[in-house]
Amino acid sequence: MGGRVAFWFEFASTYSYLSAMRIERMAAHAGVAIDWHPFLLGPIFQAQGWDSSPFNIYPAKGRYMWRDMERICAQRDLPFHKPDPFPQNGLLAARLVLAAQSGDQHADQIGALVRTIYQAQFVRQQDISATDTLGDCLNGVGLPVHLLDLAQSDAVKSRLHQQVERAIAHDIFGAPSFVASKDLFWGDDRLEQALATAGSGATPV
Amino acid sequence: MGGRVAFWFEFASTYSYLSAMRIERMAAHAGVAIDWHPFLLGPIFQAQGWDSSPFNIYPAKGRYMWRDMERICAQRDLPFHKPDPFPQNGLLAARLVLAAQSGDQHADQIGALVRTIYQAQFVRQQDISATDTLGDCLNGVGLPVHLLDLAQSDAVKSRLHQQVERAIAHDIFGAPSFVASKDLFWGDDRLEQALATAGSGATPV
Repeated sequence: MGGRVAFWFEFASTYSYLSAMRIERMAAHAGVAIDWHPFLLGPIFQAQGWDSSPFNIYPAKGRYMWRDMERICAQRDLPFHKPDPFPQNGLLAARLVLAAQSGDQHADQIGALVRTIYQAQFVRQQDISATDTLGDCLNGVGLPVHLLDLAQSDAVKSRLHQQVERAIAHDIFGAPSFVASKDLFWGDDRLEQALATAGSGATPV
Repeated sequence: MGGRVAFWFEFASTYSYLSAMRIERMAAHAGVAIDWHPFLLGPIFQAQGWDSSPFNIYPAKGRYMWRDMERICAQRDLPFHKPDPFPQNGLLAARLVLAAQSGDQHADQIGALVRTIYQAQFVRQQDISATDTLGDCLNGVGLPVHLLDLAQSDAVKSRLHQQVERAIAHDIFGAPSFVASKDLFWGDDRLEQALATAGSGATPV
C-alpha cells in the first residue's frame, strides 16, 4: 500500500470520463494516491496523421464507441449524452486544472473539479471551452474564479505544453492512461490493474 | 439461458488468442452456444488505408500491446511469444476452420482446432501459413488431413470472402469481436459482457 498512480486524462475523451468518475473512490479503497495529469491528445494524434478523433476518422469504430459507452454508463448508473460537436475542445479546461494545481492549497479539490468539468460536458451538455461553463464548475466545487485568469497565463500554457511532452515521453498514445510503478496502462478497462500495480508497489510480471 | 454468441476471430490477432483460449469454457459455464467465425482483418484494415497491423503502423500502440499481452498472459498462466514476423498470415488457417465446418460431423472439434492453431503461432512459434504446421494441428485434434485440400477449394475460398463481407455488415472493425442479441462487442475485455448478453437473450440497455 501507499503507492501512487498517475492518471492521464483528456477532457474530450469519453473513456476518460468513465475513469474520472470512479478513480478517486477506487484509489482511496486501494490506499493509492492519485497524481492528476490533464493533457491533450490532439498533438499526439496529429503527429500520427489524425486531424480529429479516431472515432470520427474511423466511422465503424466511432459507432461502436457510442454503443459501448451507452452500455457501460447504464451498468454504472452514469448519465451520458453525446456532445455536439464531438470532440469538444478541452484546452482551457486542461489549463484550468493545471492552474488549480499551482501550489498545494487546492489539492483536495482537484478530483471534484475534474469530475464536474466532465459532467458539464457529458451530463449537462455544456460547452467546456466556454469561460462561463468553467466559472460555474469552479463555483460548484468552491474554488476561486480567478483561477480562470491564471489558466490563461503564459506559465500555465507552458505547463500544458510540458504535459504533452511528458505524455509522449511515457509512450502515451490514448486516454485515459495510467502509470503505476513505471508501467503504462491504457483505457478505463485497465484501471483496476493499474491500481493493483500501484498498491503492490511492483509490476505484476 | 440457451443463447448464442458469435465469436469473430482473426488468426493473426493477439487479443483473439486470449479469447480463443477461454471462450469455450466460459460459454459452457454460461449455458451459451458458440458460433465460430474465422475472418480476415486485412481487407477491413486496407479499406481504411492501413497496409499492416495498426500495432505496426502506430509504434507506441504496438509497444503497449506487447506489454499488455505479456501482463494478461502472466495473470492467466498462458504461454505467449511474439511471432516473427508479426502479423502472421492467417489466410490458410481461416480457410481450414471453414473447411472443418463444412457439414456437421466435426462441430465438436472446432474449438480444439482453433486453439491448437493459436498455440502453434503464439506458443510453439510455428508458421501458421505452412501446410505442415496446419497438418500437425489437424492430427493433434484428431481431424483428417484431407481437410487441408478442402481448405484450398474454390468453395471454401468463396466462403471466406463471404465471411469478410458479413463481418463488414456487422460493423466489425477489429478482432476479437462478439455478436450477441444483435449487439456488437469488441475486444477480449468484452467477452464477459457478450456472454451475459447472450445468456439473458436481451441487450442490457
